[in-house]
Amino acid sequence: MTKLSDATREKLKGVSTPTLASALYKRGMRIQMIQDVRPLSAPKNGSMVGEAYTLRYMPAREDLNAMNVFRDHSHPQRRAIEECPPGAVLVMDSRKDPRAASAGGILVTRLMMRGVAGVVTDGGFRDSGEIAALDMPSYHNRPSAPTNLTLHQAIEINVPIGCGDAPVFPGDVIVGDADGVIVIPAHLADEIADEAVEMTAYEDFVTERVRAGAKTFGLYPPTDEANLEAFSIWRRQHGR
Amino acid sequence: MTKLSDATREKLKGVSTPTLASALYKRGMRIQMIQDVRPLSAPKNGSMVGEAYTLRYMPAREDLNAMNVFRDHSHPQRRAIEECPPGAVLVMDSRKDPRAASAGGILVTRLMMRGVAGVVTDGGFRDSGEIAALDMPSYHNRPSAPTNLTLHQAIEINVPIGCGDAPVFPGDVIVGDADGVIVIPAHLADEIADEAVEMTAYEDFVTERVRAGAKTFGLYPPTDEANLEAFSIWRRQHGR
Amino acid sequence: MTKLSDATREKLKGVSTPTLASALYKRGMRIQMIQDVRPLSAPKNGSMVGEAYTLRYMPAREDLNAMNVFRDHSHPQRRAIEECPPGAVLVMDSRKDPRAASAGGILVTRLMMRGVAGVVTDGGFRDSGEIAALDMPSYHNRPSAPTNLTLHQAIEINVPIGCGDAPVFPGDVIVGDADGVIVIPAHLADEIADEAVEMTAYEDFVTERVRAGAKTFGLYPPTDEANLEAFSIWRRQHGR
Amino acid sequence: MTKLSDATREKLKGVSTPTLASALYKRGMRIQMIQDVRPLSAPKNGSMVGEAYTLRYMPAREDLNAMNVFRDHSHPQRRAIEECPPGAVLVMDSRKDPRAASAGGILVTRLMMRGVAGVVTDGGFRDSGEIAALDMPSYHNRPSAPTNLTLHQAIEINVPIGCGDAPVFPGDVIVGDADGVIVIPAHLADEIADEAVEMTAYEDFVTERVRAGAKTFGLYPPTDEANLEAFSIWRRQHGR
Amino acid sequence: MTKLSDATREKLKGVSTPTLASALYKRGMRIQMIQDVRPLSAPKNGSMVGEAYTLRYMPAREDLNAMNVFRDHSHPQRRAIEECPPGAVLVMDSRKDPRAASAGGILVTRLMMRGVAGVVTDGGFRDSGEIAALDMPSYHNRPSAPTNLTLHQAIEINVPIGCGDAPVFPGDVIVGDADGVIVIPAHLADEIADEAVEMTAYEDFVTERVRAGAKTFGLYPPTDEANLEAFSIWRRQHGR
Amino acid sequence: MTKLSDATREKLKGVSTPTLASALYKRGMRIQMIQDVRPLSAPKNGSMVGEAYTLRYMPAREDLNAMNVFRDHSHPQRRAIEECPPGAVLVMDSRKDPRAASAGGILVTRLMMRGVAGVVTDGGFRDSGEIAALDMPSYHNRPSAPTNLTLHQAIEINVPIGCGDAPVFPGDVIVGDADGVIVIPAHLADEIADEAVEMTAYEDFVTERVRAGAKTFGLYPPTDEANLEAFSIWRRQHGR
Repeated sequence: MTKLSDATREKLKGVSTPTLASALYKRGMRIQMIQDVRPLSAPKNGSMVGEAYTLRYMPAREDLNAMNVFRDHSHPQRRAIEECPPGAVLVMDSRKDPRAASAGGILVTRLMMRGVAGVVTDGGFRDSGEIAALDMPSYHNRPSAPTNLTLHQAIEINVPIGCGDAPVFPGDVIVGDADGVIVIPAHLADEIADEAVEMTAYEDFVTERVRAGAKTFGLYPPTDEANLEAFSIWRRQHGR
Repeated sequence: MTKLSDATREKLKGVSTPTLASALYKRGMRIQMIQDVRPLSAPKNGSMVGEAYTLRYMPAREDLNAMNVFRDHSHPQRRAIEECPPGAVLVMDSRKDPRAASAGGILVTRLMMRGVAGVVTDGGFRDSGEIAALDMPSYHNRPSAPTNLTLHQAIEINVPIGCGDAPVFPGDVIVGDADGVIVIPAHLADEIADEAVEMTAYEDFVTERVRAGAKTFGLYPPTDEANLEAFSIWRRQHGR
Repeated sequence: MTKLSDATREKLKGVSTPTLASALYKRGMRIQMIQDVRPLSAPKNGSMVGEAYTLRYMPAREDLNAMNVFRDHSHPQRRAIEECPPGAVLVMDSRKDPRAASAGGILVTRLMMRGVAGVVTDGGFRDSGEIAALDMPSYHNRPSAPTNLTLHQAIEINVPIGCGDAPVFPGDVIVGDADGVIVIPAHLADEIADEAVEMTAYEDFVTERVRAGAKTFGLYPPTDEANLEAFSIWRRQHGR
Repeated sequence: MTKLSDATREKLKGVSTPTLASALYKRGMRIQMIQDVRPLSAPKNGSMVGEAYTLRYMPAREDLNAMNVFRDHSHPQRRAIEECPPGAVLVMDSRKDPRAASAGGILVTRLMMRGVAGVVTDGGFRDSGEIAALDMPSYHNRPSAPTNLTLHQAIEINVPIGCGDAPVFPGDVIVGDADGVIVIPAHLADEIADEAVEMTAYEDFVTERVRAGAKTFGLYPPTDEANLEAFSIWRRQHGR
Repeated sequence: MTKLSDATREKLKGVSTPTLASALYKRGMRIQMIQDVRPLSAPKNGSMVGEAYTLRYMPAREDLNAMNVFRDHSHPQRRAIEECPPGAVLVMDSRKDPRAASAGGILVTRLMMRGVAGVVTDGGFRDSGEIAALDMPSYHNRPSAPTNLTLHQAIEINVPIGCGDAPVFPGDVIVGDADGVIVIPAHLADEIADEAVEMTAYEDFVTERVRAGAKTFGLYPPTDEANLEAFSIWRRQHGR
Repeated sequence: MTKLSDATREKLKGVSTPTLASALYKRGMRIQMIQDVRPLSAPKNGSMVGEAYTLRYMPAREDLNAMNVFRDHSHPQRRAIEECPPGAVLVMDSRKDPRAASAGGILVTRLMMRGVAGVVTDGGFRDSGEIAALDMPSYHNRPSAPTNLTLHQAIEINVPIGCGDAPVFPGDVIVGDADGVIVIPAHLADEIADEAVEMTAYEDFVTERVRAGAKTFGLYPPTDEANLEAFSIWRRQHGR
């Protein structure tokens, strides 16, 4: 697996998921956005970035999910909390079912303390107010108070999963912002980050122009040569 | 098409979508509310009001939706952005599918700069944080980062469409507030506005009474004659 | 019906729906959470607590739901508003359909004035901004402007209902917080409240430890005897 | 309640649900069709017809739904089976949830033996093959093996309910054919039956003409006077 | 628009929608299958084939959809029935909503009499038993008795539409079999037909081998050279 | 893993999924029914029975799913087809998404040739007519022509999965009939089979009585002692 470099991580913190989605779209990748998840609190300090560490849930069979299963330190959910590497993003496949929690305040607090970069589920978190107040980005579908044992049985750690209809392989680079969460295949992370930084510069230039009254034709995309020249000057002026 | 008058526009800015929904209900119109859309930011300065200018999307065929389609100035989405009249509301039929964006920050900023009164989609916007911060009302189902090309092909401008299961004809009067967005058939706009202003006065009176401890029986609706007299006095006192 | 005691009410104000869901789960009750409802405004002053007073809606037949039905003081919706006991929570079975309102600002204001403890629907409220600003907790699926007559016919008061797929019997104890709303069967309210207070103390202790850097193994759940001893000291220190 | 007469019952056996839906539509009734139910076997001997006798389910609380509840003869589901009048149609409000059965082969066989005219649920039946083979019409959403106790608690008999989003009042006249099941308000049954018989005659005439090569303009609807004359002759010839 | 040749039509009658879906997939086209429609009766005489002639519905505004609208010969639904060319397939965009009919027995009979090759809606047909018995293929989501006026307003003929989430342009080649309906972009029809005929030959060969006990490795796909040789002999023997 | 004995297999062939669902319900197991799957053809020769052999799909990333992936003999879908043991049932976790196929006619034919007892997916099969005609039971949600590569990437063989919201562990005993498919935990198979045989005898007795005119009270369940005596005689008479 290609390791996520510090340089790429920094670049990705400064770009948005729409820009990344467009860069992936150009490469024929249409389903990398984790659908229908949202941040529990407004993102700050740039986008959430980290390599995916995954947890797979299956439907919880009643006889295997008494409260005491958590006494077992090898329980996959509890292991994931203690083993997800610092700087990684824990991504949970909850089969898009938010009727029971994927995790709660204590476990997510522990992730934060361990230096994990963020947590994502296509289900829901309990103690959502507490999690929203943590200093670590979190994404889910909606709050969900019932314990995960009610519907979700943790079964595997760090295998390829689906999350919100997106494919997630361990080590893929996860980026989240106000629009949601996207999955960059690991081998593309560096080139996508570079391209997104470039695109972001042009988008910022365009936004400035549009706010100054420019029309979009010829500017976005830049079919008018004059706009590319103006952009070139703008880059120098803004050091980008 | 009846043109939306300034007087009616002003009246509609001061009334709510629930009041308008009730006025339409009295005329047998039950499906004028655009279902399941919400404002990207809290409405301010009264309700969003404007005549509908429409954009219809169909499912995007892959071979017709490479990134370079936007270089064509006749692309219906881009034309809609530049041609939607100032004071109008751009309403997009995204077939209730928010898995790819209906539009993004740059295009919606351009709409604002052009003096458009608002924008509505039954899909989702990308750059949702940026759009939320604009000084123009916007409504969608949820944020959505992927470019519209992923799933939505813009195909027609200003034809009758469905949006959130409501029928929208070009020129219909669109009103939006915290509860969502409603569609007033063009020919009814003036009379509905008048009636809604009246209803709003009574509702404000009722709210004041209820907050003062009145019970609702006889007051809401006014089956007790004394309440109508009190309302009459209240109107004079409040100049309404 | 067991009457909700003041002591139990106070205890329940201090505990969360996730904790209650776990306590119910231990007793084999998995579906007591009202699914997919959310508070119209951030809860304050602890959790919403009250005994359930119910209203059942059925699909609205057009000929029975002209606007003038509200002139009849025996209309079940209007009666519910005036008859729901102070301290109770009005729970509405809107068949999980938020396409028309379950109630609006005036009626919910009246509930607040009458001292009702809160209101819940698995549909939606109109005048949602106004209701959000009231000093009484309210929960729904999403805002919905059309009058309830459009789709919902109030048919029965204070019968057993479903709300958000949870069973609700009149007199069950309803508790709501940021995560949503849960239904405690009346006969279990006292023991669940006691147990939840105990669980909350331990969870608060755990949270404090985790924030101090403790790992979860052995602590949550307390399989390590030392943690139970530390908790015992902590309780004494914190008076809990 | 108007009693369903033998004459009206016979008329309704000879007409289709689409024709009835149109007759109701003319009277402003748009939601009388029970949505998304289908016959377990191809209808024979004309349409199913009978007055509605209803059963309401709510979500099943686990502690109230052990297998032994059926030992109680006052259990509403079991009472409904033994008390639904001969000639009536038993209509079950299963909240559109087919994940557990509304009833099974033995109970539906008992209904047939008792002379009940048919059975409808907006959930599902277990033993669906056995029920399909019975000599009584039955309608559901899809087969469903789990006992009703799993999700559905029978709570009331013969109250107004929703079934497949349609309002059903006890005594309403239920008609079912290959297209599904429709609910005729009791007070309209006679006039709707008469009108539907007339409409059916014209539709049969039109079908014959169209099969003979006629175009639909002027014929359907009959805007061409000549078609009405031809129909008049056709009626005499066919004794209708 | 490329006209569908008789040769291509014949080839397509002999191939299946899965084979066509695979041929389109190889060209990067993933969404050409009309999702969630099924034949009203078992297909016979090969697959349904014809060029798309389209009808677009929007949500029906109540005041524009009284029964008498059908008296107008320019009503788009009625025009579509009389104007859809013989040999074409009428494809209706009913916004995936089968709660009201897209058309009924008389109109579909007229289509058959006019030599139309088939009819498809992503909604439902009324008089479904009658339509199923016709000698023309028809596809829908499920039976639906209410008149289309209830929810669907016909608004445009022969424009690009969405049907079951697939893009349909007038003139695209529509093919239907037991698995459903697929849309071949007009310009690809000839080459896709040729390729599908080839693929079908190989699939038939494979099926014969598998039925004779062959394992799939090396055979499907043909990574084992010997299988290609055997296929070559088989083609000669079977004249394919 | 407990091996499924021939005796238990035979017993299970003679009982229905509703009876099994009730037996599991008595043990607190409520979610063992695979929801919303149906047989492609009417079951014959008793219920489908076999131990679960599983295949897990995840969302298909476009760059990993070109047609040529099937040339690799280690592709999990292809391996599953060749490695699923005779007598077992292949159960596929297609994340309840029937928009692309889980498998097609050739692969399912191969399963049949290899002596596999049946195949189940919570997605859909392509070539559904061909599969329906095979002499092996098959279950899916609905036909689906697009190749699995379109949406489903086979990722693991014989791990615990979810299928139609039911938990499926390799070796669990799968039983299918006209009502659908149920999952019996491996360790319970023998005792559940025994109990279901007993229950079936009583149900057959009850059905016979009900068809003879008996009322259900006292008989079903047998609260009337006389019925148990009559059953005892009936068993002897029928050798059951």
